[in-house]
Amino acid sequence: MRVNTERLKEDIEALANFVDKSQIGWTRRAFTPFYEEARGWLKDKMKSLNLEVNVDAAANVIGTLPGKEKHLPVIMIGSHIDTVKGGGRFDGIIGVVAGLEIVRLLKENGIQLRHPLQVVDFTAEEPSEFGISTIGSRGMVNNLPETMLLRKDLQGITLREALKRSGGNPERLTLEARKPGDVALYLELHIEQGPVLEQTNHQLGVVRGIAGIQRYRLTVEGEPNHAGTTPMNLRKDALTAAAEIILCFEQLCQETYTEEVVGTVGKLMNEPNAANVIPGKVTCELEIRSLDKDIQDMIITQLHHAALQISKRRGVSVQFDCLSQSEPILVQNNVRSVIEQACKEVAPTMFLSSGAGHDANQIARIAPIGMIFVPSKNGRSHCPEEWTDYEDVALGVQALLKALLLFDQQLD
Amino acid sequence: MRVNTERLKEDIEALANFVDKSQIGWTRRAFTPFYEEARGWLKDKMKSLNLEVNVDAAANVIGTLPGKEKHLPVIMIGSHIDTVKGGGRFDGIIGVVAGLEIVRLLKENGIQLRHPLQVVDFTAEEPSEFGISTIGSRGMVNNLPETMLLRKDLQGITLREALKRSGGNPERLTLEARKPGDVALYLELHIEQGPVLEQTNHQLGVVRGIAGIQRYRLTVEGEPNHAGTTPMNLRKDALTAAAEIILCFEQLCQETYTEEVVGTVGKLMNEPNAANVIPGKVTCELEIRSLDKDIQDMIITQLHHAALQISKRRGVSVQFDCLSQSEPILVQNNVRSVIEQACKEVAPTMFLSSGAGHDANQIARIAPIGMIFVPSKNGRSHCPEEWTDYEDVALGVQALLKALLLFDQQLD
Repeated sequence: MRVNTERLKEDIEALANFVDKSQIGWTRRAFTPFYEEARGWLKDKMKSLNLEVNVDAAANVIGTLPGKEKHLPVIMIGSHIDTVKGGGRFDGIIGVVAGLEIVRLLKENGIQLRHPLQVVDFTAEEPSEFGISTIGSRGMVNNLPETMLLRKDLQGITLREALKRSGGNPERLTLEARKPGDVALYLELHIEQGPVLEQTNHQLGVVRGIAGIQRYRLTVEGEPNHAGTTPMNLRKDALTAAAEIILCFEQLCQETYTEEVVGTVGKLMNEPNAANVIPGKVTCELEIRSLDKDIQDMIITQLHHAALQISKRRGVSVQFDCLSQSEPILVQNNVRSVIEQACKEVAPTMFLSSGAGHDANQIARIAPIGMIFVPSKNGRSHCPEEWTDYEDVALGVQALLKALLLFDQQLD
Repeated sequence: MRVNTERLKEDIEALANFVDKSQIGWTRRAFTPFYEEARGWLKDKMKSLNLEVNVDAAANVIGTLPGKEKHLPVIMIGSHIDTVKGGGRFDGIIGVVAGLEIVRLLKENGIQLRHPLQVVDFTAEEPSEFGISTIGSRGMVNNLPETMLLRKDLQGITLREALKRSGGNPERLTLEARKPGDVALYLELHIEQGPVLEQTNHQLGVVRGIAGIQRYRLTVEGEPNHAGTTPMNLRKDALTAAAEIILCFEQLCQETYTEEVVGTVGKLMNEPNAANVIPGKVTCELEIRSLDKDIQDMIITQLHHAALQISKRRGVSVQFDCLSQSEPILVQNNVRSVIEQACKEVAPTMFLSSGAGHDANQIARIAPIGMIFVPSKNGRSHCPEEWTDYEDVALGVQALLKALLLFDQQLD
């Protein structure tokens, strides 16, 4: 069974038409008319493949292909078709389109799996106007509590209402929630969103796990004095203190550990931010990601310690507030090795960790998960320049299909 | 002749009433009704002291006390009564009020100076809505070119028009301009706006000169990649690069030179400024102040060199653009030593450089200048907390009077 690159390309290009053309790049924000139009297209596609199409309580679009053995739990292939503002054509999309192509190939070759197969387009995976991401996959595993459903977008519409409008049924979230045992395996094909596959000349990546993310707000307070009249030795400059802490954090994350770590200060606000005033207050947001929580914790502890020294030496105050913490998710060894086997038969393969979060994070609460990455040109994503060669997408789908067939045989 | 602290306090408190009470602190922006009201009060005060009151082409309010020797050029005492938004009660104000008190004391004691004495309230010394500071003193020395007069405030009113409304006559700026020889000496009493006098237990500061200011825009460009998927060794983080440059600049300014230097990065903008995106672009404004331009130039050269190394090592681009440069102004030795003598007879005195600019910067284009500083509590200024004990203001006025009497004897 050979994946048809041309068909994949057609599907990706078809979805690329359902976008807000007033925005740069490809913008299909969840819950917008562009999104609903795209989902309409998707449902039609699923129906034309004779899948049984349902929209679940969390508004996820699910196409089901029955299996030979009625008692077996489903194998799920999923991702999302919403985008960030000014995004690209591949992030999420290739994972859903992969499901369609696999169903087509199975049908064309008269193959019926032992397990039921579900192709899922998860609702609103990207950070939404409600300040929540992976909404659909959260909903599917009953991790969308009332506090989240009551959040409002800028128009004052609650997430509960938005889900209803999109065909969901929030009242039934608990009732319909998938539980451990309901899903035999969740598989997702995704673009890497980073430069590693490209830089190391691999076309496929077997995901070892999804990094946990810890986010902190760092607040440095000094004294906003006159830049001309305050001698260097009498300053309490919040910005130079913050600069020292930022570099210390970078250095800690650059050291060699037994697991990969990335740490970033992405956000910084300087006050009063005037050329002739010594910065009095700097607020940063920093995050650290790794598959190993112990390493994250150790780095943060060391950073706290260093920041304390810096604050004492410079006469400023330093405070860390934890904004959020998600635990790392590890792909089980048996899942990993089957995916590795499938990938290696298709193209040069390496192991990777996922630094970005995915719907797989949520589904991992109730089922084993596995992911395959394909290269992102220049490591770019969430921007109009986001690109993956169609041949690479096809290799990813081919590996996903191979893995699916192996799992279908092995899993009970 | 003993300065009357109570009268000084009354005048300062009287002016503190003419402020925009909808703002925090004491806000009397130039060209506002609050400002015109305060100037009305000032003119009345001057008239009640029998000064001849004029408003010159640049809208400066000038009170003249005739001298005994008609052919001698004037000695000028001046400062300003406009404030920054959310400012204090002392910056500028004490210099004008000092002039009033000195005239009162001369009159009360039946003393007539050899030189004519002018007490000047300069128009709009603080950074104005036109993006220009020291407007009145610029105008007085014909340094307010047409390009500046055509600048508009947020209401679209030109500076030319604003000066007219405030009683000035921009058409006569060149005609009325003071030229070398017109002013025998310019003296200004001002708050230090820094912590040095307070920290070293001195009540009076003899200003050695006013620092030159060089301002640069520093632009660092890297790559705004995904914070989760880009390994540490493949990043081009504009913020960590900027942090390194900022610390390098601080270190260069902290070294010991033959003249004091202060350097500040007061303004920083980070883009795209999202927690999960590696900063792609950082724009800073940095400034360096010193009485020695050679030291400023050397530090900036060294900083350029270091920034180049940092940019190469980190794979980012770094650019410096000069935004403005003002030359240092040195107080002449003979002026300095007379002021020193006067101050030392009054209170513990030290030499200081002025890190802030003043109207004296402009007047120095045509006349020798001298300045006396009094302590600023906690070094604060341009804020509601700005404070100088009235006793210290009185000591400053006393020293200014002593210096004036000495100069009046010595100068021809």
